[in-house]
Amino acid sequence: MFKLHPQLLADCHVLGRLPSGHLLLHRNASVTWFILVPETDAVDLLDLPQDQLTQIMADCRAISSYLKSKRKYPKVNFGALGNLVPQLHLHIIGRTPDDACWPQPVWGNLPEGPAYKAAVLESIRTHFIEHCSLQPAG
Amino acid sequence: MFKLHPQLLADCHVLGRLPSGHLLLHRNASVTWFILVPETDAVDLLDLPQDQLTQIMADCRAISSYLKSKRKYPKVNFGALGNLVPQLHLHIIGRTPDDACWPQPVWGNLPEGPAYKAAVLESIRTHFIEHCSLQPAG
Repeated sequence: MFKLHPQLLADCHVLGRLPSGHLLLHRNASVTWFILVPETDAVDLLDLPQDQLTQIMADCRAISSYLKSKRKYPKVNFGALGNLVPQLHLHIIGRTPDDACWPQPVWGNLPEGPAYKAAVLESIRTHFIEHCSLQPAG
Repeated sequence: MFKLHPQLLADCHVLGRLPSGHLLLHRNASVTWFILVPETDAVDLLDLPQDQLTQIMADCRAISSYLKSKRKYPKVNFGALGNLVPQLHLHIIGRTPDDACWPQPVWGNLPEGPAYKAAVLESIRTHFIEHCSLQPAG
């Protein structure tokens, strides 16, 4: 029985399940910061078999496309680190030159920011249900 | 005519060409830090067409496999940021809990470190020529 890491649950809203993993949204709304968590025991993204990696990257492309086309972010940062939280998870983060920690990476540099309003959270969830086969979390 | 960004040339050794892009090695030898530069005008990794992305990720898997099996790194960090250097490039970095900036990401946190010895550089290049179809740089 797969369980999301407690640190990820503390930091993020759980939006639901995409084909390749659980879709989370970081609670700090100063940048739009998605986290995808595949159900695997692998340590690192590049340890995964090519087929699973391809499916994951397809979901990451859909998330990035949402950030660029719907949220008008000019840049998307992508990373898989896992130095602090060992459960494999991928970061897909909308960035702009006027955001709170540009040009630094968000990790360790993003100051506390506002929370999401419920309506915004719902509109994001609805987009992924309608366009990316998101199965919403219970 | 594709040209590597001057900042990447300043920071890295150019090892040669893999099927999906130019393989660079960061000059700071305190961690083994590869950079892969596909020939593209795309802004971000996740902007690339799925087929090209799959080929790139296959090369990244081979680089990661080298870091884990030959260099005995327990962790590999993967990232595509491009907030400072706009030419699309991917980071594949061997990490250990006793490295110079663990558990922080390397970007902005890695202190200056030693240079590579020529023999080590040559052994890395030879591995990628023999196992990953590297075409060595002129």
